Amino acid sequence: MTTKIIEITKPRVRNPIFIEGLPGVGNVGRIAGGYLVEELNAKKFAELYSSHFMPFVLLQQGATVHVLKNEFYYWKAKTAKQRDLIILIGDSQSIDAVGHYDVVDKILDYVATFKVKDIFTLAGLSVGEKKEKPGVVGAVSDHSLVKKYSKYGIDFESGENVGTIMGASGLIIGMGKMRGMDGVCLLGETSGMPLLPDPKASEEVLKVLTKILGIRLDTSKIKEKVKEMEKLIKRVETIQRKAILDLMKQRLPKPGKEEEEGEEEGEELTYIG
Amino acid sequence: MTTKIIEITKPRVRNPIFIEGLPGVGNVGRIAGGYLVEELNAKKFAELYSSHFMPFVLLQQGATVHVLKNEFYYWKAKTAKQRDLIILIGDSQSIDAVGHYDVVDKILDYVATFKVKDIFTLAGLSVGEKKEKPGVVGAVSDHSLVKKYSKYGIDFESGENVGTIMGASGLIIGMGKMRGMDGVCLLGETSGMPLLPDPKASEEVLKVLTKILGIRLDTSKIKEKVKEMEKLIKRVETIQRKAILDLMKQRLPKPGKEEEEGEEEGEELTYIG
Amino acid sequence: MTTKIIEITKPRVRNPIFIEGLPGVGNVGRIAGGYLVEELNAKKFAELYSSHFMPFVLLQQGATVHVLKNEFYYWKAKTAKQRDLIILIGDSQSIDAVGHYDVVDKILDYVATFKVKDIFTLAGLSVGEKKEKPGVVGAVSDHSLVKKYSKYGIDFESGENVGTIMGASGLIIGMGKMRGMDGVCLLGETSGMPLLPDPKASEEVLKVLTKILGIRLDTSKIKEKVKEMEKLIKRVETIQRKAILDLMKQRLPKPGKEEEEGEEEGEELTYIG
Amino acid sequence: MTTKIIEITKPRVRNPIFIEGLPGVGNVGRIAGGYLVEELNAKKFAELYSSHFMPFVLLQQGATVHVLKNEFYYWKAKTAKQRDLIILIGDSQSIDAVGHYDVVDKILDYVATFKVKDIFTLAGLSVGEKKEKPGVVGAVSDHSLVKKYSKYGIDFESGENVGTIMGASGLIIGMGKMRGMDGVCLLGETSGMPLLPDPKASEEVLKVLTKILGIRLDTSKIKEKVKEMEKLIKRVETIQRKAILDLMKQRLPKPGKEEEEGEEEGEELTYIG
Repeated sequence: MTTKIIEITKPRVRNPIFIEGLPGVGNVGRIAGGYLVEELNAKKFAELYSSHFMPFVLLQQGATVHVLKNEFYYWKAKTAKQRDLIILIGDSQSIDAVGHYDVVDKILDYVATFKVKDIFTLAGLSVGEKKEKPGVVGAVSDHSLVKKYSKYGIDFESGENVGTIMGASGLIIGMGKMRGMDGVCLLGETSGMPLLPDPKASEEVLKVLTKILGIRLDTSKIKEKVKEMEKLIKRVETIQRKAILDLMKQRLPKPGKEEEEGEEEGEELTYIG
Repeated sequence: MTTKIIEITKPRVRNPIFIEGLPGVGNVGRIAGGYLVEELNAKKFAELYSSHFMPFVLLQQGATVHVLKNEFYYWKAKTAKQRDLIILIGDSQSIDAVGHYDVVDKILDYVATFKVKDIFTLAGLSVGEKKEKPGVVGAVSDHSLVKKYSKYGIDFESGENVGTIMGASGLIIGMGKMRGMDGVCLLGETSGMPLLPDPKASEEVLKVLTKILGIRLDTSKIKEKVKEMEKLIKRVETIQRKAILDLMKQRLPKPGKEEEEGEEEGEELTYIG
Repeated sequence: MTTKIIEITKPRVRNPIFIEGLPGVGNVGRIAGGYLVEELNAKKFAELYSSHFMPFVLLQQGATVHVLKNEFYYWKAKTAKQRDLIILIGDSQSIDAVGHYDVVDKILDYVATFKVKDIFTLAGLSVGEKKEKPGVVGAVSDHSLVKKYSKYGIDFESGENVGTIMGASGLIIGMGKMRGMDGVCLLGETSGMPLLPDPKASEEVLKVLTKILGIRLDTSKIKEKVKEMEKLIKRVETIQRKAILDLMKQRLPKPGKEEEEGEEEGEELTYIG
Repeated sequence: MTTKIIEITKPRVRNPIFIEGLPGVGNVGRIAGGYLVEELNAKKFAELYSSHFMPFVLLQQGATVHVLKNEFYYWKAKTAKQRDLIILIGDSQSIDAVGHYDVVDKILDYVATFKVKDIFTLAGLSVGEKKEKPGVVGAVSDHSLVKKYSKYGIDFESGENVGTIMGASGLIIGMGKMRGMDGVCLLGETSGMPLLPDPKASEEVLKVLTKILGIRLDTSKIKEKVKEMEKLIKRVETIQRKAILDLMKQRLPKPGKEEEEGEEEGEELTYIG
């Protein structure tokens, strides 16, 4: 089935900005996106499922199962200076290299039906050390955007030294450009320790983003909220690791006594080929 | 070809319940499903083949070859309180991560043509130790089902601590929900030793399932039957391990004298690129 | 592109028997198939290419490149007792697990257009030791075929102990059955040493096959011919190993001084994610 | 999405020659192709993107992101003796075995729409040592081409000893033949050290190519140009290695204290399957 989007309702959005916040380094994008959805009380309107996510379901409270997915939310502008938003958050990115392009292509095909022209992707930037005040590094689909967003305190200088943006956050603005969409990736500096969500970096990213969007948001509750979110995020990650380990075990032959001998001496290996 | 379903006959079933019992931890689901098919004398009506199964055939008694497959059976209700059943059993689940979603999607597409609204999937729950009386843990596609099935002695509390359901049993109820199907996964507690079928856990799962289905079934012969089934199951697994090992050997270069030197000194490695 | 068949000419064959001889254990099938094509002077009429073969071309004599492929040949019966033949030989089988089903499915789709009803696949059976007079073990798509071919000295008893037929030879008769084709796999006993073609086993397989086909064939030249064939076969295999090794090297990071430090101390790993 | 070609403009070329110069051993083809595009001031008219390239974007100067791609350029003949050209250069080849055929198939489908009948692919030939004056070894899609190009100082003798052409350069002329296209692969002898671009080998390849094309080209600036190009090429490669390493780290379970114990003693591995 590769990748499928199931639409729950068709939202009436006008000239929406598309914002992506999926898991990644320090879960900076995931936390920022999730917090934005919650604080704005954005409404879910579609879900994305993919063969490129881990093939398991999570068992949640109340014995219900949870299939790994990405979710599309929308939010309608409240003032004339604001714009409608489509926000994508989720449990997972593709677990294999080939899947990233497939998932991103489906995402862009879908948001293109809402005539999206502007994209912000939220991600973490691993800098190897914990910073007192993490900066927000920017990357753009087109150089002209640097000037447009120069007043928001984004560091457009450091990116080149750093090198790459892995996965959805980079590909969405890169591939979006071919559809005529303008894209900015906001990267919150984080230590880069795996499994360690970084709410501080998310907060800095959110501050920049909300200033651009003309949205007032109380970011002080983010640490607290992260503790709740963290539970699910950590569970997905821990389980993912165990599952991968398990898959590897399954595939590797057990060095059981009987088989080991057969393998070593080639006596019982009378299989047909 | 990825995944194909070949229909042998089109059964006339009315409002059928779909039951899945494929191989997995302790082969709990596979044994329970197979026993159900045999005791009910259910009729086979379709077969599923997939590129995501191991690419070999088994040599059976009488020199006939057996392609790995899943099989659909149906059973017509005998009393007014019973419901028609569609039962899926088989030799294998997808051997790669990407394939699980593909196979499950095909299964759901197919059973949806019979207007399936209720699903039970049967699986094992690895608890790390052998229990005198293994419990049956439940997971549901929707929380309302907990109440509906509360009287059948299913443990709906332990699931959350356990975490995930790998493969078909979880995905079928998770992805089935999106098609408006209600799903319950019945997980028999088992020690989790690989290659060790656990008929006791299967029996407990079957007791719960048949009570729900309103079917009287003598589960006492299950151990005996398992010994027969076990032969095929064990063979598939042993061979699968050998085959995977063999594939790995094939792909890894033989550290033969000649090549080793070439590799080390880079002298003979005059390949073109 | 996955798998493509390019037809050169459409042969007029009537009720043809399909014979497969692709590389495998001891290259028994490949040698037998190739010898049959050459001795019968069979005509090539189609070629099969696949993404599941190694992504390189061989450099042949005269500086021409050779893309890995399978080739379809046909031969018209000379006497009333003989039948028309379609023979498949080639350089390679799928190099990944998923590809086998895809390639076999394409092969069967294609030969079905010629209304093939009978299949013989030729393969090696690894018995772990060199036998003075290697036997020919048989496997069938349907038990009734055992009786039909009982008079040709095929051992239909040993198969079950042996277990599986990996790859095309097994899948072709297994999947062919679903298209209503009768299939027999003839397996020549061989030591199972990799990279060691076994002309003796091929000769025994050919003796049985030609007796069934009512074709007189001088099998005495097979050793001699193998020496020629061996050159290409060995080259493909040696190169395939080197290529796989090379791909692995490419994918694995070089433990160069600079990078090693970065990796170890996590200082330079300031990539963005 | 697998592989997509996005056309920017439809060039009016007549009977064009198709030239491929993608990354590979010593980046010989990539450097030669890039230099040709630059010196001829060829115009870009299409871009190719693929799921088989690494799933990241590069951060370039000016904070703009760069999606890995291949690029098609065209050049119109200036004199009656010259021919129009289509030149393919790019950042990457497929990173997995299966993808090469897919990408090459798309490339050939596309250039076939321009009625391409002649192809030159440019690549490196790893000879394990640095040569004072590297030779240019040739491989052809058809033996008749050896004679046709014999006067240009191409070594058509050494190929067979060398063995294979990995990836696009080989497959393009091999698969192009099936579309009735004549193909020559020009292989510049290089030491084969990975990560070491070899402008000298590229220069020799270009000298032969431009002589064939009847184009006068100053190849003296190639070393200088390579230094500029090298920056991007090296970055892609270094990052690709880091990214692959990182992906591997992600997939491998962290041998954290807690998990290690669970794994060893099987106590905490109470996952459901």
